Amino acid sequence: MRIIDLIIKKKRGKILSGEEIKFFIDGYVSGDIPDYQVSSLLMAIYFQGMNKQETTDLTLAMVDSGDRVDLSAIKGIKVDKHSTGGVADTATLIVGPLVAASGGLVAKMSGRGLGHTGGTLDKLESIPGLNISQTMERFAEIVNTCGVSVIGQTGNLVPADKKLYALRDVTGTVDNVSLISGSIMSKKLASGSDKIVLDVKTGSGAFMKDVEGAVELAKMMVDIGTLAGKETVALVTDMNQPLGNAVGNSLEVIEAIEILAGQHEGDLKAVSVALASKMLVLGEIFSTEKEAVEKINEVIENGEALNRFAQMIKMQEGDPEVVKNTGLLPAAGSIIEVKAEADGYIQSMNTENMGMVALLLGAGRTKKTDLVDPAVGYWLKKRIGDLVKKGDVLADFHVNDRKNLDESIELFKKSIIIGKNPGKKIDLIYNTIS
Amino acid sequence: MRIIDLIIKKKRGKILSGEEIKFFIDGYVSGDIPDYQVSSLLMAIYFQGMNKQETTDLTLAMVDSGDRVDLSAIKGIKVDKHSTGGVADTATLIVGPLVAASGGLVAKMSGRGLGHTGGTLDKLESIPGLNISQTMERFAEIVNTCGVSVIGQTGNLVPADKKLYALRDVTGTVDNVSLISGSIMSKKLASGSDKIVLDVKTGSGAFMKDVEGAVELAKMMVDIGTLAGKETVALVTDMNQPLGNAVGNSLEVIEAIEILAGQHEGDLKAVSVALASKMLVLGEIFSTEKEAVEKINEVIENGEALNRFAQMIKMQEGDPEVVKNTGLLPAAGSIIEVKAEADGYIQSMNTENMGMVALLLGAGRTKKTDLVDPAVGYWLKKRIGDLVKKGDVLADFHVNDRKNLDESIELFKKSIIIGKNPGKKIDLIYNTIS
Repeated sequence: MRIIDLIIKKKRGKILSGEEIKFFIDGYVSGDIPDYQVSSLLMAIYFQGMNKQETTDLTLAMVDSGDRVDLSAIKGIKVDKHSTGGVADTATLIVGPLVAASGGLVAKMSGRGLGHTGGTLDKLESIPGLNISQTMERFAEIVNTCGVSVIGQTGNLVPADKKLYALRDVTGTVDNVSLISGSIMSKKLASGSDKIVLDVKTGSGAFMKDVEGAVELAKMMVDIGTLAGKETVALVTDMNQPLGNAVGNSLEVIEAIEILAGQHEGDLKAVSVALASKMLVLGEIFSTEKEAVEKINEVIENGEALNRFAQMIKMQEGDPEVVKNTGLLPAAGSIIEVKAEADGYIQSMNTENMGMVALLLGAGRTKKTDLVDPAVGYWLKKRIGDLVKKGDVLADFHVNDRKNLDESIELFKKSIIIGKNPGKKIDLIYNTIS
Repeated sequence: MRIIDLIIKKKRGKILSGEEIKFFIDGYVSGDIPDYQVSSLLMAIYFQGMNKQETTDLTLAMVDSGDRVDLSAIKGIKVDKHSTGGVADTATLIVGPLVAASGGLVAKMSGRGLGHTGGTLDKLESIPGLNISQTMERFAEIVNTCGVSVIGQTGNLVPADKKLYALRDVTGTVDNVSLISGSIMSKKLASGSDKIVLDVKTGSGAFMKDVEGAVELAKMMVDIGTLAGKETVALVTDMNQPLGNAVGNSLEVIEAIEILAGQHEGDLKAVSVALASKMLVLGEIFSTEKEAVEKINEVIENGEALNRFAQMIKMQEGDPEVVKNTGLLPAAGSIIEVKAEADGYIQSMNTENMGMVALLLGAGRTKKTDLVDPAVGYWLKKRIGDLVKKGDVLADFHVNDRKNLDESIELFKKSIIIGKNPGKKIDLIYNTIS
């Protein structure tokens, strides 16, 4: 088998066999196939696409390139949750305790933020003392004890994805449904859970700007999960504005705590409850989502959800008191009010830019080695459809380093479109694919 | 400017500016832009195409990557000739002396064979003593004296093409009209002639299998030549069977000598005369092709064409006696008759495979460093449309090393389709583009 023949085959729109795809992935990871042939194949895949079977074969070949996490020490059905990424998407920190408190199991390996999107690990690390590096034994112990643990990736999971993603990033081959699906699903399949709930974001802050693209991606990932033998469900949800109101690491932890404590409503809670109820049904704790939602409301009301979060924090060496006193979380030196400059309705937001605003304040990374400031970010006070008057506070900026402050305020204001008429009403959950 | 942005721009079907194309070519040649980004851009170009202006910009950026040959020491209009390559295409060795004997000037830099196609330099080097490496001063002197010289490329011409072609070859991005045009025309524009006649081959032994593709390629190259200020004319000619009857280096020289001596008719002569007459009109020696053809017939008849070939051979240190006694050329140890295995009409030939037959006998190269045996090859006795009887000789194989003999005979027989009915009549010259 020669990679040049596979490039030409795909270029001509033919279907690659599982054996051919495995040859490509194995050869790339081993270094036998050079970058320049792989980038050419990736571009051919961009134009010709891959069908369900090819994408599944790609995903499984990627999984096989590294280790698989063994979660057998955790007794019960482990349901993983994955979001394709957005702004103010703190759902994992809410969903995990909700599911755990409702009787489910969440053994989740999360990632860090990059570019305009935040990362769960960065958010967790804003909690004093919390350690996201745990041994597999301890990980299992935590989940067996309190039903939920969120840690960093351990072991050599999907090295093919690391190498492929780095190449796609510099060769214009990121935005292809099969390559995205392979990247996401290979990590999900390798990370050991039994079932998967996906939150596929769509809108101005998401990778997939339009609903059709998001649905296509969601369908492809559900198909891969199914073909690979792991039941998978996907929600397609809105990212035309930040999901929550808090953008920035400790601010997002505060919002999560407020939601778990029943003190805060809104889109972030609604999506978290939708995801958690799916996970509870998939985990066979409840047979209907209605029952699951009832239980979720109960564990918020009776304090068990927040309690599980505190337990997890404690077992991961963090200070559990933060759930009662958010003042223990890192706080920024100053808070600056950013105000509306005109009267009108908030019609739309450039959510990707709103993620970049937090990055400019120091909350995010442009490259993997950047350090984040856990305290900084902003608290959004208005949402799409709200009527504002000139001078109304749009957001509180939590600021330390003022280097990029002017730029970030300018970008923030530019990202929020205020007009005479209310904007188009947007849905929160567009679609469920199972 | 960043190459990733150009990749994405082209991927989305946008038009690259001249400045952007120059950035790409300069960056690639300097090593600032790595192979893996260029191969991805090339595949995007394959799918999205390049328009006339982009292709011309590409070609000129490629020309600018190296030296340009200065032919100003040769007084008069120099007309270059280029064939896109085929089997038994010895036209250069015939056209050069025909044009020179008719009053024109041919200062040509040729190439070597690779794969199923032969190369003029390899053919010339089968003439004892002939030296294809000449200084520019001597090159000019030869052309000024006898009107024709064919040498190897000198100087650092179009390094961008060397690098790009090597990459295209291993990344499945060879077969794109703009990339092919850029590769051919950059070398033609750099090689210093004033005007260009192109012979674009089409058929089973050509790069372009169908006439439409060949016409598209011819039009693109004529447009580039015109936009770059060098008058360019293209013929689209047939390569559904070997053009001449001889396939192999010294055999092809023999056929060229026979044609120049007026002892041999056929397709190779017809195409050579068509090309030569175009060159004579372009070179402003004659105002009509009719006059040019008359002169060509005259110089064949009166021996001046053959005489010019002998003069050129002599001035390039070769033995001019070969034109009178082809027995001085290297001859193979044995001649083996390959015979028809059935009665019928020769309906079609797989000409690419027929080129590979000569390669298997030792006449060609699979890689640049391979050595060729000048003596071996075959002399085709039948052409498409001919009626043959079982046992008729299809070709004489001129053989030294018998390592691949059985394989080559088998491939040869497989490449010639004999059937009950005469095959579709094929044209020799499909189109003229100017």
